[in-house]
Amino acid sequence: MSELRFDPIRRHWSIIATERRFRPHDFLRPSPEEAGDPAGCPFEYGQEAVTPPEIFAIADGPRQANAPNWKVRVVPNKFPALRIEGELSREGVGLFDRVNGIGAHEVIVETPEHHRPAADWPPEQLALVLRAWRERIIDLRRDIRIRYVLLFKNHGREAGASLYHPHSQLIATPIIPTVVVQELNVAREHWAHKERCIFCDFIQQERSLGERVAIETDRFILVEPFAAAFPFETWIFPKTHSHDFALSSDANLLELARVVRDFLRRIRTLLNDPPYNLILHTAPSPHPRPGQPQYWSTIEYDFHWHIEFVPRITRIAGFEWGSGYSINPTPPEEAARFLRDVSVEEG
Amino acid sequence: MSELRFDPIRRHWSIIATERRFRPHDFLRPSPEEAGDPAGCPFEYGQEAVTPPEIFAIADGPRQANAPNWKVRVVPNKFPALRIEGELSREGVGLFDRVNGIGAHEVIVETPEHHRPAADWPPEQLALVLRAWRERIIDLRRDIRIRYVLLFKNHGREAGASLYHPHSQLIATPIIPTVVVQELNVAREHWAHKERCIFCDFIQQERSLGERVAIETDRFILVEPFAAAFPFETWIFPKTHSHDFALSSDANLLELARVVRDFLRRIRTLLNDPPYNLILHTAPSPHPRPGQPQYWSTIEYDFHWHIEFVPRITRIAGFEWGSGYSINPTPPEEAARFLRDVSVEEG
Repeated sequence: MSELRFDPIRRHWSIIATERRFRPHDFLRPSPEEAGDPAGCPFEYGQEAVTPPEIFAIADGPRQANAPNWKVRVVPNKFPALRIEGELSREGVGLFDRVNGIGAHEVIVETPEHHRPAADWPPEQLALVLRAWRERIIDLRRDIRIRYVLLFKNHGREAGASLYHPHSQLIATPIIPTVVVQELNVAREHWAHKERCIFCDFIQQERSLGERVAIETDRFILVEPFAAAFPFETWIFPKTHSHDFALSSDANLLELARVVRDFLRRIRTLLNDPPYNLILHTAPSPHPRPGQPQYWSTIEYDFHWHIEFVPRITRIAGFEWGSGYSINPTPPEEAARFLRDVSVEEG
Repeated sequence: MSELRFDPIRRHWSIIATERRFRPHDFLRPSPEEAGDPAGCPFEYGQEAVTPPEIFAIADGPRQANAPNWKVRVVPNKFPALRIEGELSREGVGLFDRVNGIGAHEVIVETPEHHRPAADWPPEQLALVLRAWRERIIDLRRDIRIRYVLLFKNHGREAGASLYHPHSQLIATPIIPTVVVQELNVAREHWAHKERCIFCDFIQQERSLGERVAIETDRFILVEPFAAAFPFETWIFPKTHSHDFALSSDANLLELARVVRDFLRRIRTLLNDPPYNLILHTAPSPHPRPGQPQYWSTIEYDFHWHIEFVPRITRIAGFEWGSGYSINPTPPEEAARFLRDVSVEEG
């Protein structure tokens, strides 16, 4: 079974993923090419039996599970980093800590169409994907062992996608991820001092300066962060304070889909279809744990959900890994200007 | 001029590197192939005028600067992330913080031989490189603006190397990098509670367990960390407590060179010459700063220098970036066993 291991020296959690155990010779095989060819793709329409039994699907009308006629389909990852079966156990191991690999690892098959990337879908299709994200978060939060549901999309091999068919993933963890805890703590501390949301303050500052705003609509704003770690890194916020993505209405998700699609088309034009990661940060599960803060009770006020978009056109090398610093050769003010000015054909 | 920018929401420093400013069309060019061909390589023996004037060199006998007859040569990076010229300034910018890009960015040309990787050098050559690292740290610490000198080697394109000729780099920063501060703080806290070095405790624990020890010599130990972030990630420690790499004797560096070379040969055999990063973590510069802890005064007791080796055979994807967790498909106990058992031809 996989396990989560904690290193107190660098305060780093690692999932030792024995389900996908790799021996040295496994690394010698060249990784598979990005397959434009749907033959052999496990996510094809009409080949639903190839995946493990589905967990959730969105269809136009009545439909049997694992039959065709779906628009979005959620299935377990065949080589899960974490598994839903079993009892959670935590223990110390000398200097270290270990938690057994309880959680969930699911794949959201985003469209029946193998060849059509998200930038080319009608916004309604992307809105369905976002609805699937929302429904999976709501469902997994019912499991008291699960503390956080991280939703993310890897596009392109350099961004970690091993399959070409458009898909996103979720990994649900029994511990809130370090990066999210960091944001939660900073937001909580800001609230405690000022009774204001730090993200709302950030949005107001960036709106009034303007120079790092890439796109703004009625309900959403896309900003190039001041200390962007990567060229064209972009944060996507709802302008109205909201701690929890899972509370988003269908209407909100449709507007989000519209602006994300617009953004993806601009990025594709500017950077020639770059590999990218897209990550959702929302409030953690509401269940309290003994000895841990019950984030839910105050988080309604102090957190603010958002999506982080990271193009993978620069590398994380020795300096970045060893220092925790990034080197970004594109000032975010310039990236924002390019994003505002680029013209994208309607489609 | 470049600048260091701090994002208080995710507590992340980014160097916005305007010296290497990239516009969108720069990213569209394919990155250069790894050039086995020395023609056009800026680090060639006999072509010393191609680089900026050298900062330091090791030669067999008397030698003029920027002439041939060197064994190791240190030159400024042509596209530096940080520059040595100017006065350090720090300021707040709304929610954020900015420090101008004062520091240093140097290249250590590790050998005159374009085609010969570190694993194939005589240990004496690698010891000269380590001596160059030591001398550059000592020299740069004289500059009161500089708080830390990070030395690292990127081998192979996937690890961030843009040039084939064997080289390492240093980036000297006016702020101690986040990852190093984390280690310093944990070590200090452990010392405060227990009057023991956490790294010495770690070494003792791993020696007594044995299962994660890859190589052990009289003076050095190589361990696969319990929560390894990557397959075959390896930490290299001097077994005798020492906070500062720069205090290492020539004899120590020669033994370190021997064991690192042995290790690199094992890794090359096991993983077919993988790309890798190798990073030195040592104590920061001794200069105190107003309002900042003077690490030097206690660091003699609580820090323990080490080298981190990271093979780049798995990708940092959306989950890793968004959570701060790693997914590692190779348990460190197995990696250590493979490293112990592999047979490498003498050479």
